[in-house]
Amino acid sequence: MAQDKYKFVFTANEAASEGVTEPIRLPKLIRKAMSLARGPISKYKIGAVGRASSGRVYLGVNVEFPGLPLHHSIHPEQFLVTNLALNSEKGLRQLAVAISNDCIEFGAPCGNCRQFLMETSNEVDIKILLKSKHEAEGSFGKLKLLLPYRFSPDDVLPKGSPLLLEKRDNCLILSRSAGEICSSDCSHLKCKALAAANNSFSPYTDSPSGVALRDEDGILYRGWYIESVAYSPSLGPVQAALVDFVARSRGKGFDKIVEAVLVEKNNARVSQERTAKMILDTIAAPNCDFKVFHCDVDFQKSLLVNSDR
Amino acid sequence: MAQDKYKFVFTANEAASEGVTEPIRLPKLIRKAMSLARGPISKYKIGAVGRASSGRVYLGVNVEFPGLPLHHSIHPEQFLVTNLALNSEKGLRQLAVAISNDCIEFGAPCGNCRQFLMETSNEVDIKILLKSKHEAEGSFGKLKLLLPYRFSPDDVLPKGSPLLLEKRDNCLILSRSAGEICSSDCSHLKCKALAAANNSFSPYTDSPSGVALRDEDGILYRGWYIESVAYSPSLGPVQAALVDFVARSRGKGFDKIVEAVLVEKNNARVSQERTAKMILDTIAAPNCDFKVFHCDVDFQKSLLVNSDR
Ligand SMILES: [Zn+2]
Ligand SMILES: [Zn+2]
Ligand SMILES: [Zn+2]
Ligand SMILES: [Zn+2]
Repeated sequence: MAQDKYKFVFTANEAASEGVTEPIRLPKLIRKAMSLARGPISKYKIGAVGRASSGRVYLGVNVEFPGLPLHHSIHPEQFLVTNLALNSEKGLRQLAVAISNDCIEFGAPCGNCRQFLMETSNEVDIKILLKSKHEAEGSFGKLKLLLPYRFSPDDVLPKGSPLLLEKRDNCLILSRSAGEICSSDCSHLKCKALAAANNSFSPYTDSPSGVALRDEDGILYRGWYIESVAYSPSLGPVQAALVDFVARSRGKGFDKIVEAVLVEKNNARVSQERTAKMILDTIAAPNCDFKVFHCDVDFQKSLLVNSDR
Repeated sequence: MAQDKYKFVFTANEAASEGVTEPIRLPKLIRKAMSLARGPISKYKIGAVGRASSGRVYLGVNVEFPGLPLHHSIHPEQFLVTNLALNSEKGLRQLAVAISNDCIEFGAPCGNCRQFLMETSNEVDIKILLKSKHEAEGSFGKLKLLLPYRFSPDDVLPKGSPLLLEKRDNCLILSRSAGEICSSDCSHLKCKALAAANNSFSPYTDSPSGVALRDEDGILYRGWYIESVAYSPSLGPVQAALVDFVARSRGKGFDKIVEAVLVEKNNARVSQERTAKMILDTIAAPNCDFKVFHCDVDFQKSLLVNSDR
């Protein structure tokens, strides 16, 4: 089917019908992943294929933004883990990454991604496909062996803190919006962005944020800020929403994005507003409407959620 | 002497008088490094002490910028290597990194920094101090063992390409400025920024850039964009100039910066203009004057330089 070309998420059965009958066969989907890459700066097509603990198989791709500094780029491993989070997956089991230039070459994640992957709740169990050019299949190695003497959330967060891919609720409400009543599935961009911010992983600076996007066909996308204990590998909320866009827009260009909303805290230690505007000014439709709404913690709800834990 | 408090660069003799009589004694300067950290977001004081191939010893610190996304942060290892580049050092030999919260804890660089360090010309020879809490001294381990199956410049650049800390000249001239004649040590900010851009390490996107700053006392600082093969760990030109500022301004705040110039290529694949403006708007003096000048490659000079190689 032609429509399978843009597929980023596979059930275990669908993956099996693509040849991924067991984890070591993840490479069977790597060409598909690479074909979906958006790397106009490097010209590289980098693909990742990962199996979640649910058994579903996800694709990740590199996404680069001409004109913007390179730290805005999304690595395929970040793409994949972000899409796991957006799909409420609880863990990543196995991961294969390959780069296509003239031929396909499997490789381990870069240092930035090894560090980013530390945030996931099951990082010690993640297995990475290691394969030299001469090997037919390669074998899995543990992520923790790829980052010996690692710096990880354990070094900083209190014991028992929820990690990335674990359930969280930041208990945020829109500022001065008590009077507004929306259903849980309303299509206000600001409500979608608020819901996203409530999932945001920002345990290091307590600056959760979320972004919602609308394309010219009226389809909505959303994503949330994901922080790294090492700061620099953090993924911004616009990038996270663009992961949703790339994964679900069936090949649309970023210039089809016509409306965007960012929700972040008043006076957050880390503000995304100017950065979000800069990214959207650079890649979205020329008249893309961009609005920012602020939020605050609902302390009553927060007390309840934290006493549950 | 009170003035030693702000010292970031030590001759071999000066380092010895601080107790660094041999590489394994680098920790003798770590408290000094940590005292110079600027981490208002994390509140961590992270210090690095590194010995260059010249025998000089350099300090590095974490620098964080409240209000800006975390990828703008400068890690101590990036600080140190950038300062090596600004001081025309040819290589880094040994490195010790420690974090101070309640006590001092030595640790290996984060994944982002391990990746960044790959750009230096002698990365395979860099030794990192590895020391557990129970050890008195610790011992050096090779950087390459901290990033097994690494992604490095060798994987992408043509053989023999100059790496970071090796001599380079990007042969850039200011656009439409043929009529202007300046001495090599003039104090025009745009000339300093152009000279910086000529040292910029941007082999992956060919988008060299440089920044020059002036503080309210008339002192000039400069730095250049340093790119990473993994894109995200790249250090922007404003950050590089801020390394020079922190290393030489004797404790001044960023709000003492009153003038800034960015020089980058016309229509560069990676443009720093808006990002530079955003950073300076956030941290520099409220009326800081910010100008951008564009440059082009002097093809005649470029032919000469490349035939020399
Ligand atoms: Zn990566
Ligand atoms: Zn609503
Ligand atoms: Zn680091
Ligand atoms: Zn001049």
